[in-house]
Amino acid sequence: MSSDSNSNRTRTITWHDPTMSAAAARGMSGLQMLQALVSGELPQPPIFALMGMALTEISEGRAVFTMLPAEYHYNPIGSVHGGIAATLLDSAMGCAVNSLLPAGVTYTTLEIKVNYIRPLTTSTGVVRCEGMVLHLGGKTATAEATLRNIDGKLLAHATTTCLILRP
Amino acid sequence: MSSDSNSNRTRTITWHDPTMSAAAARGMSGLQMLQALVSGELPQPPIFALMGMALTEISEGRAVFTMLPAEYHYNPIGSVHGGIAATLLDSAMGCAVNSLLPAGVTYTTLEIKVNYIRPLTTSTGVVRCEGMVLHLGGKTATAEATLRNIDGKLLAHATTTCLILRP
Amino acid sequence: MSSDSNSNRTRTITWHDPTMSAAAARGMSGLQMLQALVSGELPQPPIFALMGMALTEISEGRAVFTMLPAEYHYNPIGSVHGGIAATLLDSAMGCAVNSLLPAGVTYTTLEIKVNYIRPLTTSTGVVRCEGMVLHLGGKTATAEATLRNIDGKLLAHATTTCLILRP
Amino acid sequence: MSSDSNSNRTRTITWHDPTMSAAAARGMSGLQMLQALVSGELPQPPIFALMGMALTEISEGRAVFTMLPAEYHYNPIGSVHGGIAATLLDSAMGCAVNSLLPAGVTYTTLEIKVNYIRPLTTSTGVVRCEGMVLHLGGKTATAEATLRNIDGKLLAHATTTCLILRP
Repeated sequence: MSSDSNSNRTRTITWHDPTMSAAAARGMSGLQMLQALVSGELPQPPIFALMGMALTEISEGRAVFTMLPAEYHYNPIGSVHGGIAATLLDSAMGCAVNSLLPAGVTYTTLEIKVNYIRPLTTSTGVVRCEGMVLHLGGKTATAEATLRNIDGKLLAHATTTCLILRP
Repeated sequence: MSSDSNSNRTRTITWHDPTMSAAAARGMSGLQMLQALVSGELPQPPIFALMGMALTEISEGRAVFTMLPAEYHYNPIGSVHGGIAATLLDSAMGCAVNSLLPAGVTYTTLEIKVNYIRPLTTSTGVVRCEGMVLHLGGKTATAEATLRNIDGKLLAHATTTCLILRP
Repeated sequence: MSSDSNSNRTRTITWHDPTMSAAAARGMSGLQMLQALVSGELPQPPIFALMGMALTEISEGRAVFTMLPAEYHYNPIGSVHGGIAATLLDSAMGCAVNSLLPAGVTYTTLEIKVNYIRPLTTSTGVVRCEGMVLHLGGKTATAEATLRNIDGKLLAHATTTCLILRP
Repeated sequence: MSSDSNSNRTRTITWHDPTMSAAAARGMSGLQMLQALVSGELPQPPIFALMGMALTEISEGRAVFTMLPAEYHYNPIGSVHGGIAATLLDSAMGCAVNSLLPAGVTYTTLEIKVNYIRPLTTSTGVVRCEGMVLHLGGKTATAEATLRNIDGKLLAHATTTCLILRP
């Protein structure tokens, strides 16, 4: 491998202190905080920069992330690592749940289950991950999400169980 | 936030063309390929660099990854994103399955299910993720994995179903 | 407990040799076989009698079961056992997949994941379980299902991964 | 089909009012209640009679069920319905969790995930299902279970997430 061939295989990310965003978000409802992430009023969390993903739509009980699968996401067996799809699906489901929580109420993810349908590669193009709440109760919530390419072809789908933490 | 306070919130990763590693691995069994990753004979896949994770042990039906949880892994709600643990667990389970496959036989992950027990933070210290095969059949395999801190405390656990692709 | 109080706590089920139905179904597509179950041309499988459940609707990629939760379904902690909802959800998803398979092609369930939202009790009334295929590929299929009461309230939901067995 | 051929395809089950057992169990810890089920001091719950299953061992964080797969468990495609294995696995995991709860503390199952490895048939012989707690916290617990034949061959495995309800 010539040194030239690898010259563009480098990537630099920067991020902001996540505790400062968390402090700025105090007093906001989940929906307000997530809207501030979409609009850029709040700085992007580190994981968004790391993965190259963006929260592009948020409404009550629904969240959409987009990402461009790239070589830096690759596993040892020639495609985007399944953990990347899991991160998108987990994010979309978690934000969908969070969008329904009032200020002072938080959640934690108890479990996720992800089905992989088609591999993501550098040829896939931009992917769109939509999460939707299925149930919000006093103590728990469940949600589902789909990951699709720009033509709507299903790449992966998931469900989650979250614990709601009321003060 | 002063510009100084963010001066160390930047990270540059580099990686190698993953198709060249895949070509170099042709003719190797799964175990041989993974041993070459541990020893460094084969270049690390991009996802390892992205996540800051390393494959540290491999044997028949068993794989161990280690990683130091860091601020660049953080989600918007103050801890390491669940997708990071999912990536570690998926990697450990997939490599455990792969370690049992002869040359020319490959696998694809059909689904993973992850339970989150304790949050990962910048105070957690190095984590260790161990995957073990539960069943290897002609067409499918299942595996499980645990993610623990250095004291053995359980942070997350997972199971997977893989499809075995025989030529 | 007086013997009288228990006088109606008995239930007798009968069924037909399931291998004879399987033989009668040979040469039928999945949809034809399932339609013959709905119409009663084929005898009901033993599990339907055991659980008190019925396949009431079948179309391409979609199946509906109904059941009346009863005391004979109860667990030691005062509600219908979770295995009953799992049986309904697994049935609806499996039949939805089967409805898309031509004669000679069969399937086997690799895994199910069930979320329990609300308990089923003797006060719940008839429940309706609808399964829908999410993806049918050459080697695998995935499906989801919901279990609802007659007012549409969500009681449980599930996903599955199936292996398609082509001759 | 002659009427004779079906003469032994009938099964009558009886059970006791499950609310009376629940009342009798009040004041007992989970372990005491489950020990009383093993010893027969408490009447068997209806689901045990329905499925033909028995709780045979209980200790702190561990429960074992046994069952003989039979024709009355069969699905339309020639083997024991997956819901039966799900019922056994769910029972073993739930009782393992319950065995660690003091009097007055209860649990509810949030989700189960079951992997099916080998089919159960009338030739399988007695099966043994062992559940073990993986984590017990203040608000949630997780457990896993295996289903094996008498030679220890793996037939199915599962995990669960439970919500702990403290007064």
